[in-house]
Amino acid sequence: MILTGPEIAREREMGRLILEPFHQDGVQPNSFDLTLGPTLAVYTSEVLDTREENPHTILTIPDGGIVLQPDRIYLGSSIEVLGSRHHVPIIRSRSGAARLGLFLHVTADLIDIGSIGQVTFQLHAVQPVRVYAGDRLAQVTFWRVQGDIVLYDGKYQGSRGPQPSKIHHDMAQAVR
Amino acid sequence: MILTGPEIAREREMGRLILEPFHQDGVQPNSFDLTLGPTLAVYTSEVLDTREENPHTILTIPDGGIVLQPDRIYLGSSIEVLGSRHHVPIIRSRSGAARLGLFLHVTADLIDIGSIGQVTFQLHAVQPVRVYAGDRLAQVTFWRVQGDIVLYDGKYQGSRGPQPSKIHHDMAQAVR
Amino acid sequence: MILTGPEIAREREMGRLILEPFHQDGVQPNSFDLTLGPTLAVYTSEVLDTREENPHTILTIPDGGIVLQPDRIYLGSSIEVLGSRHHVPIIRSRSGAARLGLFLHVTADLIDIGSIGQVTFQLHAVQPVRVYAGDRLAQVTFWRVQGDIVLYDGKYQGSRGPQPSKIHHDMAQAVR
Repeated sequence: MILTGPEIAREREMGRLILEPFHQDGVQPNSFDLTLGPTLAVYTSEVLDTREENPHTILTIPDGGIVLQPDRIYLGSSIEVLGSRHHVPIIRSRSGAARLGLFLHVTADLIDIGSIGQVTFQLHAVQPVRVYAGDRLAQVTFWRVQGDIVLYDGKYQGSRGPQPSKIHHDMAQAVR
Repeated sequence: MILTGPEIAREREMGRLILEPFHQDGVQPNSFDLTLGPTLAVYTSEVLDTREENPHTILTIPDGGIVLQPDRIYLGSSIEVLGSRHHVPIIRSRSGAARLGLFLHVTADLIDIGSIGQVTFQLHAVQPVRVYAGDRLAQVTFWRVQGDIVLYDGKYQGSRGPQPSKIHHDMAQAVR
Repeated sequence: MILTGPEIAREREMGRLILEPFHQDGVQPNSFDLTLGPTLAVYTSEVLDTREENPHTILTIPDGGIVLQPDRIYLGSSIEVLGSRHHVPIIRSRSGAARLGLFLHVTADLIDIGSIGQVTFQLHAVQPVRVYAGDRLAQVTFWRVQGDIVLYDGKYQGSRGPQPSKIHHDMAQAVR
């Protein structure tokens, strides 16, 4: 079951989910709006690799916005800190952003139960699109679980700002 | 919980969700198939902008189909009118369309509870792909909710045909 | 409701879902990790078509990996055989893969209840990215259903390896 907007607000008041800063006009019928933070991470190597560390650099979005180009992946993050030890958050684009051809994630929309932090967005533009820090690009939904809960204790816990991939750590494990 | 196909048909009969036109062979094990309507919207400016109105034009798909090109976003819509005041609809691609590299949405798959209309598809082709009006490209699933329901009363209510982004309205609010 | 990781393991033990090979370290807080099999399918025609058969060829991923290029769709598959007659599986990317700009599917993430097999991944790279057979790129979640169950009996049942689109079969039906 997906929590309705009023239920998201209620569960937050009861301390069963975190969503900060919270403002009532971010509550939608079955989600809560998320805003784009001021920095983006982009990779600096031409070819990425799942088994190597991929160097990156950080861009700060100027007041006049930044044009996202179609040929690269930009990692952004939510201004909001969010998570829950009871429900599973799933992020997605707001309709208005998606209708401009802006992907908010690259099929990784699920947040592990117990993971608390600013969410990393995987931004990809089909056509060049100018975005601004503070844009309400995303939304988060919350889903009830069935079964015993083991909280997330992984490598992105407590994230602040956009977090580049750490997949090469897994891969190193996988081939040990 | 996700409604099974038979449950979707039953809830529709009980008037708890709208799905018109309805035909039994569109019922899948846990979804209902959606078909592509005859018109597409494309933007006419080179660089899009979340805080400006982005002009667009409407294309009619000819009988011989239209080749979607990888470098742009096409907004289409379902022939079906759908929605629910009780369940949350979520759209996705049918497997066969996706296996041709055709995105059905750009991470905006959630339909607000209470929103009734033809659904706008955000079509993006990884490789050039010819599509036709009437193609069964998409499917809709329905999800049970937990909590009090506040119905959608937003800017895309009652949509007919593809609806371009209205995100600049939000952004104007956000920076007020 | 989404099954927690421990619940996925428990339901598998009770024979209510299939996930083979299973290994405890693939269990995440609310999903199970999936690995990339050794072959990829790519289309050989320049323009794809929803109403024609689209010829393809099979590539084997060499030991040194393969660089996925942004301008094409690659169909891969999970090493794991999975499915359920009780719950609905939904696949997605693992966060680490997505943060490299690698799409795991092209908005077809839902697996019909009763469909058992290796899952076809729709791989699309925003920037060139090298992947390897055995990479843990994906994860599967399981969702409870409401309503009577009619099991999947479709054209991809029992899949092994990447399965190209069969959408032209539907389309032939649609225009009959």
